[in-house]
Amino acid sequence: MLEISQRGQAMPVSPFRKLAPYAEAAKAQGKTVYHLNIGQPDIQTPPQLLEAVQRAHIGVLGYSHGAGTESYRRKLAAYYQRTGIPAQFEDVMVTTAGSEAILFAFLTCLNPGDELIVAEPFYGTYTAFAIAAGVKIVTVTAHIEDGFALPPLADFEAVISPRTKAILLCSPSNPTGYVYRRDELEALLGLCQKHDLYLLSDEAYREYCYDGATATSALSLPGSEQHVVVMDTISKRYSACGARIGALVTRNQQVWTAAFRFAQMRISPPGLGMLLGEAAAELPPSYFDETRAEYQARRDLTVRHLRAMPGVSCPVPGGAFYVIARLPVDDAQLFGQWLLEEFSHENQTLMLSPANGFYQTPGLGQQEVRLAYVLNQRDLEAAMVCLAEALKVYPGRVELAEVQLSEAHAS
Amino acid sequence: MLEISQRGQAMPVSPFRKLAPYAEAAKAQGKTVYHLNIGQPDIQTPPQLLEAVQRAHIGVLGYSHGAGTESYRRKLAAYYQRTGIPAQFEDVMVTTAGSEAILFAFLTCLNPGDELIVAEPFYGTYTAFAIAAGVKIVTVTAHIEDGFALPPLADFEAVISPRTKAILLCSPSNPTGYVYRRDELEALLGLCQKHDLYLLSDEAYREYCYDGATATSALSLPGSEQHVVVMDTISKRYSACGARIGALVTRNQQVWTAAFRFAQMRISPPGLGMLLGEAAAELPPSYFDETRAEYQARRDLTVRHLRAMPGVSCPVPGGAFYVIARLPVDDAQLFGQWLLEEFSHENQTLMLSPANGFYQTPGLGQQEVRLAYVLNQRDLEAAMVCLAEALKVYPGRVELAEVQLSEAHAS
Repeated sequence: MLEISQRGQAMPVSPFRKLAPYAEAAKAQGKTVYHLNIGQPDIQTPPQLLEAVQRAHIGVLGYSHGAGTESYRRKLAAYYQRTGIPAQFEDVMVTTAGSEAILFAFLTCLNPGDELIVAEPFYGTYTAFAIAAGVKIVTVTAHIEDGFALPPLADFEAVISPRTKAILLCSPSNPTGYVYRRDELEALLGLCQKHDLYLLSDEAYREYCYDGATATSALSLPGSEQHVVVMDTISKRYSACGARIGALVTRNQQVWTAAFRFAQMRISPPGLGMLLGEAAAELPPSYFDETRAEYQARRDLTVRHLRAMPGVSCPVPGGAFYVIARLPVDDAQLFGQWLLEEFSHENQTLMLSPANGFYQTPGLGQQEVRLAYVLNQRDLEAAMVCLAEALKVYPGRVELAEVQLSEAHAS
Repeated sequence: MLEISQRGQAMPVSPFRKLAPYAEAAKAQGKTVYHLNIGQPDIQTPPQLLEAVQRAHIGVLGYSHGAGTESYRRKLAAYYQRTGIPAQFEDVMVTTAGSEAILFAFLTCLNPGDELIVAEPFYGTYTAFAIAAGVKIVTVTAHIEDGFALPPLADFEAVISPRTKAILLCSPSNPTGYVYRRDELEALLGLCQKHDLYLLSDEAYREYCYDGATATSALSLPGSEQHVVVMDTISKRYSACGARIGALVTRNQQVWTAAFRFAQMRISPPGLGMLLGEAAAELPPSYFDETRAEYQARRDLTVRHLRAMPGVSCPVPGGAFYVIARLPVDDAQLFGQWLLEEFSHENQTLMLSPANGFYQTPGLGQQEVRLAYVLNQRDLEAAMVCLAEALKVYPGRVELAEVQLSEAHAS
């Protein structure tokens, strides 16, 4: 009997795609479906990025260096330095999107069977990469009551084992929007120093912090040189998800060299995407001001609506473009399915991501959903009205004890 | 102590890159170095492919479907059908170059510790993917005397174990240029049927067969449906290595579905490259005639020169753009290094790939090199003159028993 590998069987379906068949059916019925389920920015890719590709004179579209073209790596290093991240040209490896940076980091830093600690809820796709790399994810739990702040260090220490090789963080966080404070990052780095662990830092949403805050890069911390591997991408930063351009950045030369062997395995990153990335790296910092203001307005709109819905609670996310909300429903996944199958308001409904897919511990997040505010404000408003109407009539509505948000942590 | 993973330490340096530092040093000395070491076509990327990207109106460069855009998948399926490969739209998954198709095939079809049989010499990068996926490559040996034809089936049967899950073939072959005959493919498929094995078929060089021959796709064989996974790429076919666009094609729906979960892990393939690939899939079959004729002329030139050098023997490769030659030298790697460090002829020299990197069995291929004929004919001629001159004066020259080429197999 021909069989699929165990890892092939174990690979999960993306949490933001579980409800996709129901969304397709709803659209087939003629309903408008607002997609709050996936972090695909709707904001236009800056035209000068595409123009850079379109202007290029290419005779032979050949392989590049395995770490990317020198010109792009130099411009990316300059961007990092402008952003306060002390990365040199030699520290930068261009990858096929952030995805490949995650894969290379896992393959390079962990053996099969080794353990990686992640605070849940976390980006569900880490689980898929962990399965592909044979790595075991061990979780500590962040709580909505704390705005998903860093769990106590004692929780991390409690799960460190001889197989633990790394801690992974994502800040600003997908899916919570929480932005780790500098002292939280220092505490995590201290833990990594104490226990000889790598600190894998997913900084995809670096530029999107609100209320005047900025994200601290783990790589900018003193003493981070040997420990930190940054996994980066231009996807969210410049609304360029389809370019598939990311980067692995580390000052640990051993890690860089080993990761580079994995990079050589696939020869080179996408060439046309690198042309686009190069133009992106040259955008002035002011580019982010407008986009950030738009996302902040959407976040405010989303949170205002959510908090006005009886029984709904959510922290104010400090960054990224997600919010996790707890809803007064029996089961967020059933509710999400019901929204698409049974509900409509003025022939409109919405698709959201049930948050249980972002937790590893069974049973957590049953009443929580992740909403991505990647719609223009009019559509976002309409989606929020739908959600409010839906909660009024959902047959599985339950009364929840009110969440006491600790505002010290919540924004 | 922070340590690199075992697989990170085990990752090999690409055989065609081992001599790279010596080539850089030679160029720094002002020597012209002819690169016969890497299969990077010099032939221009068809301009209409780049124009398709440059003409596209893109507002948001977003994620595509995990298996690629529907329009590209449909055009690719049409190309396969024109080529005699019975692949439907549903069987096609767009990947980030052939590399990713190899990775997904390994991850999907084999468990860590499972065995994959490959005839050596083989594309060295398979080793890297096998290490990344925790798969063990077991070899049977093809011989230069037979023109690198399929080794006897008994050799395969002798190495099949309970852990064997798949046989991998590459036809037309990198690095040998050998094109498997239909009866050889049928024999391999029969073996896979008998032992419940997958047949992983790397068909990157499909369009480049010479002397009027055509390559048979493993997927076109009756009874191949459940067994065959084709790993494909547009890199060599259209001189578009930098686009990083490939495909995994299988009619086994279980395999497709499991591989698709790995595809969803990295969300989508490169968007700009898919626009280029779409235009490529629409090129008329006549596009290949001119390119094929050019490669055939180069092959003839290369083989003619090699065979005129005393003590050198090589089969006539039937496809791809490589030839493996046995040289009268003590050690091809030392010779390759000497060519770059010590030798020049009219201030020119050449870089080649020592073939030991394409064998897994220690000691094999010590006198063999792989030459990629991806230079224009004038440069190729100059490189061949350099090689002939070098062999006259190389201090490590040895006399080899003459290779008796079995011409029945050699072309």
